[in-house]
Amino acid sequence: MTRGRVGVLISGSGTNLQALIDASREATFPAEIAVVVSDRSAALGLERARLAGIPAVFHGARSFAGDRDAYDAALAGLLHEHGVEWVALAGFLRLVGSALLDAFPWRVLNIHPALLPSFPGLHAQEQALAAGVRITGATVHLVDRGCDTGPIVLQGAVPVLPGDDGPALSARILRLEHQLYPRALRWAVEGRIQVVDGTVVVTPPPGEDLTLGVVAG
Amino acid sequence: MTRGRVGVLISGSGTNLQALIDASREATFPAEIAVVVSDRSAALGLERARLAGIPAVFHGARSFAGDRDAYDAALAGLLHEHGVEWVALAGFLRLVGSALLDAFPWRVLNIHPALLPSFPGLHAQEQALAAGVRITGATVHLVDRGCDTGPIVLQGAVPVLPGDDGPALSARILRLEHQLYPRALRWAVEGRIQVVDGTVVVTPPPGEDLTLGVVAG
Repeated sequence: MTRGRVGVLISGSGTNLQALIDASREATFPAEIAVVVSDRSAALGLERARLAGIPAVFHGARSFAGDRDAYDAALAGLLHEHGVEWVALAGFLRLVGSALLDAFPWRVLNIHPALLPSFPGLHAQEQALAAGVRITGATVHLVDRGCDTGPIVLQGAVPVLPGDDGPALSARILRLEHQLYPRALRWAVEGRIQVVDGTVVVTPPPGEDLTLGVVAG
Repeated sequence: MTRGRVGVLISGSGTNLQALIDASREATFPAEIAVVVSDRSAALGLERARLAGIPAVFHGARSFAGDRDAYDAALAGLLHEHGVEWVALAGFLRLVGSALLDAFPWRVLNIHPALLPSFPGLHAQEQALAAGVRITGATVHLVDRGCDTGPIVLQGAVPVLPGDDGPALSARILRLEHQLYPRALRWAVEGRIQVVDGTVVVTPPPGEDLTLGVVAG
């Protein structure tokens, strides 16, 4: 089996990266992580990658002196050098620009800890608590030029429980993310995620759903 | 058992009204519908009320010549005449103003066919389809001066299924609404919904959740 080559971009501890690494260790998983790139040298996720025998690259912004396009272009080049076909953002805290998106058209995935379009941006779990919602979740979407606005691939829901604080709710959402993201990546490299006229068309394998955590309607 | 007295406001067919009528026929249900008021004389919901032996009142806006406060004040008076303690909006298409809200402080409930804060306003189901979400639902909330912005009481989730159109998705959400709204009304008249410093505090009975359709986290 030729496996699809994925580049994962991180800025921090990379627990979603770890979920993708664990999934890709399964012999039947159709994707392999070709490279992990961090914009922070101290990101724990780089260590996770090295421990798994995956090339781990620090790609800092400082030498680009604020030129975002140049940073993104160099990042795209780095990913291409590793034969990357799909890019997965896993806690990558930089906004991804055109230079990268044009190099991987509709092939950049992100996971967000809320049921988009509710609570885009930072601290989505705290936003949900402040809004008093009873249900929140996580969303895997294709990245476009906006912030958490791209076409939705799949979503999972969790309840907000009485007494939840930010860490408790975040942990519950994270367990969901760790199920959602490998599924989305598998579908991506299997060609099940396509964009036609700006609309994402997802064709799940038989018996698999576009949702997690929701009782079938 | 003294039952809490509820007024239901409608504009149309009133399927949520019917769900409340059906629930209130149970001997153990702690609320009774004291009056149904419609701002449209032809609303089918008025007929549902009459068939159930519930006072059904047409309260038109025409004679108030666009004076919303006067309309709402008269409506509040009408509800008080029927001994109403809680007000439930069930497809009432007028924005409820201060004159009514001040007469029933934090005692006006609404149900909305989306997971607020996503998709407030009209045609929430079509908004959800257009946004491409995989999960949507329904929300019972207390009414404040905004449009679908009041404190959330409980929420339920449903999947958006491949091939769904507006009517199919609306029907799935409606089945959820018909479970959510009687539950919320029961909790309301049992004193389980209180607002403290602008925050809604809901104390569900043992074994009951603030959510429907979501797998426990």
